[in-house]
Amino acid sequence: MTGSTHSATRRTVLRGTAALTAATGLTAVASPAHAAPAKPGGEGPRVGVLLYDGYSLLDPTGPAEVLSRVPGATVTMVAERRGPVRTDTGDVAVVAERSLDEVDRLDVVLVPGAGNRGTVAAMENQTLLRWIRHMNRRTRFTTSVCTGSLVLAAAGLLDGRRATTYWASAEYLEKTFDVRYVPERFVESGKFITAAGVSAGLDMALRLAARLTDDDTARAIQLAVEYDPRPPYDAGDARRASPELKARALKILADSQV
Amino acid sequence: MTGSTHSATRRTVLRGTAALTAATGLTAVASPAHAAPAKPGGEGPRVGVLLYDGYSLLDPTGPAEVLSRVPGATVTMVAERRGPVRTDTGDVAVVAERSLDEVDRLDVVLVPGAGNRGTVAAMENQTLLRWIRHMNRRTRFTTSVCTGSLVLAAAGLLDGRRATTYWASAEYLEKTFDVRYVPERFVESGKFITAAGVSAGLDMALRLAARLTDDDTARAIQLAVEYDPRPPYDAGDARRASPELKARALKILADSQV
Repeated sequence: MTGSTHSATRRTVLRGTAALTAATGLTAVASPAHAAPAKPGGEGPRVGVLLYDGYSLLDPTGPAEVLSRVPGATVTMVAERRGPVRTDTGDVAVVAERSLDEVDRLDVVLVPGAGNRGTVAAMENQTLLRWIRHMNRRTRFTTSVCTGSLVLAAAGLLDGRRATTYWASAEYLEKTFDVRYVPERFVESGKFITAAGVSAGLDMALRLAARLTDDDTARAIQLAVEYDPRPPYDAGDARRASPELKARALKILADSQV
Repeated sequence: MTGSTHSATRRTVLRGTAALTAATGLTAVASPAHAAPAKPGGEGPRVGVLLYDGYSLLDPTGPAEVLSRVPGATVTMVAERRGPVRTDTGDVAVVAERSLDEVDRLDVVLVPGAGNRGTVAAMENQTLLRWIRHMNRRTRFTTSVCTGSLVLAAAGLLDGRRATTYWASAEYLEKTFDVRYVPERFVESGKFITAAGVSAGLDMALRLAARLTDDDTARAIQLAVEYDPRPPYDAGDARRASPELKARALKILADSQV
């Protein structure tokens, strides 16, 4: 197929989208590539995702994908300073749209995890920890992915609670803080929801979407992002992994990081 | 717990990381937050992820998370122009590190999907399509997530092939192009690998990681990102979804987009 056969300027590649667009009053107006367009609505939950140097890419972006589908929600990437914040591998940067002091109030705070370097730095960054504690006073949910729970714990928010974290950090979490590690994909303890490593943020975000709305809305979001996972291997559960596989996973992780 | 109990400047929050770090000669040197640090190695596969206005956040970032763990790999976000490229919801921007003409050769090209607006624009953007065709001449794998397969098809690369796409775009794919839709998480057809909607890029990326290395390395990467998915609902398969749920998912998607 060449250009001429699909050159109509208004088409619908998603079944039903045109009708829905008409029904909801949205129009497909092109916006400048780099501007932040105003989204209609925005009266829903305000989600703030904290970025800091060395986070793991999927930790913030998986939940952001899911939570940005919650009706009326706004998802804002936040960091000490506005601008690009780079991942643990150094390959990718996501833009922080707001600095910490530009964020007044959030319904949800999400703290992603990072490699060893990024996690340790975040746990020792009193500016970050103060901000997390401050925002937590008014959040409906304070959440983490992967080693982000170590950062929440360092902020003093998980004392006496059940929580999860990256599988290789479970021992550290329990030894360092007054936290009971639970090896689940995500753990709810009051308004604190912690997710296991990296990809577990997706599972957690669906539950969080339901808490912010209802089960049926969460199911529709799951279908909207076609989250019917079928990994080609069955090696993601550390409880069933051999010591060799675990050592190999940690070496791969360490080697991939800057 | 307060700051004083975890104030050591060099600690290991990931079990075994310190020993591995020593063994592999890596040191935990802090790097400036916004600089792109040089990763040791980099002699592995060069992966280019094409960003364009209105892509869905998880489409490029899920696979980038997985593929950045392939030993020696570099993952580069590429777009028409360097700089931030914004998602379909307008909430988030990922930085394109290179413009199209700055990329000489890639082992893997990955084209993410987008909402209706972004997909249609990409399918009609001759600069993007030309670049995809040009890169494809030397790739080992040319891949897509979600409606990214419509962009590959618009570039003329999927003629006569089996492929998948976002569930709501399957009919459009088959009617518009000489492509047979296969409702799998990902479909391999020669060097072309297409993934289903949004989250399916994770499943595809694991298989791709195996093709670039071997099954055991892919398993270690799966454990490294703790990809043992357990969504709290079972609503991600469009083949088993009610018409009502599908309509609701598409409305949620349309309403979330700018």
